[in-house]
Amino acid sequence: MPRIWSQTIAAHRDAVREAILDTTADLVAEHGLTGVTMSGIAKDAGIGRATLYKYFPDVESILRAWHERRIDRHLDRLHRLRDGTEGAMPRLEAVLTAYATAISHQGRHDSKIAADLHRGEHVAAAHQHLRDFVRDLVADAAAAGAVRRDAPADELAGYCLHALAAAADLQDPAAIQRLMRTTLTGLRGRP
Amino acid sequence: MPRIWSQTIAAHRDAVREAILDTTADLVAEHGLTGVTMSGIAKDAGIGRATLYKYFPDVESILRAWHERRIDRHLDRLHRLRDGTEGAMPRLEAVLTAYATAISHQGRHDSKIAADLHRGEHVAAAHQHLRDFVRDLVADAAAAGAVRRDAPADELAGYCLHALAAAADLQDPAAIQRLMRTTLTGLRGRP
Repeated sequence: MPRIWSQTIAAHRDAVREAILDTTADLVAEHGLTGVTMSGIAKDAGIGRATLYKYFPDVESILRAWHERRIDRHLDRLHRLRDGTEGAMPRLEAVLTAYATAISHQGRHDSKIAADLHRGEHVAAAHQHLRDFVRDLVADAAAAGAVRRDAPADELAGYCLHALAAAADLQDPAAIQRLMRTTLTGLRGRP
Repeated sequence: MPRIWSQTIAAHRDAVREAILDTTADLVAEHGLTGVTMSGIAKDAGIGRATLYKYFPDVESILRAWHERRIDRHLDRLHRLRDGTEGAMPRLEAVLTAYATAISHQGRHDSKIAADLHRGEHVAAAHQHLRDFVRDLVADAAAAGAVRRDAPADELAGYCLHALAAAADLQDPAAIQRLMRTTLTGLRGRP
């Protein structure tokens, strides 16, 4: 097979895969994790069921792929926020605010499917990545004198990420701002 | 059956049930959630397997009963701490410290069994009870002027409980103290 043709096929496969995951995202938003089916995805993505099964063996594997893509995009966004913000403390605040907002939009999924998704290796790796990422930002802010020095940066990163996970119960943007303010007071320490 | 005799039987049944759950607690501490079996419990509790099956149909139901008893005991302990401590803020601090310590001892259980246990109705009810309990303590401390007033007591309770859940990663008592200090700084707000 000529190289140009195999590249075309690969690009096509990627495009179909992305379309499947986009459709899954819409269906999850509309019906929740338990309301997604293979036939529903095939229909809304405008592909045949047989084609869909060539890409994914079952709905669980689609949800896993969708969830992993979502996590990766969140992490990318936090990295871009860091790179686009000047100053150690504004950078940390921008990243933590985006994290709290994402948690709030995600909400609570207490279903069995959600529990299965969150037990995956990809999630554990992403959590660790996020923890390390925030730890480095905290360490920079501490070096700049903007964060308390009586606890190690890694512990303070754990404090921030856990405290902001309370945003899962909050929808009101003002409530998320209050949570951010309270969490940052703890992080800064007394002047 | 004479009343005194039926009371004796009920007391005996309760005692056997408690012994089964005590044995389960020991086995979980030693082998983890996945290392508990019906035959292991029967052997260590000193009862026959047939007797054990009269009390519980399977190991999942024993783990659930053990987990529920454990949660109830934690909540009882927090209530006693509240009742035994004078002053709104010392009372809140005593309860939150005990909570963080319990979370630390409990540690992370990322297994499927742990996820199943935590999705139970009993756990959801206990979470809500704890949230309401801490909310009332926060409201009392806010009325006493010891807690920030720019956020509702319920949101601050959510902040505290989430922030202190970071204790699941901490074993060192000094680290738990640092987490408490950081969390309380956020709760108090700037003077």
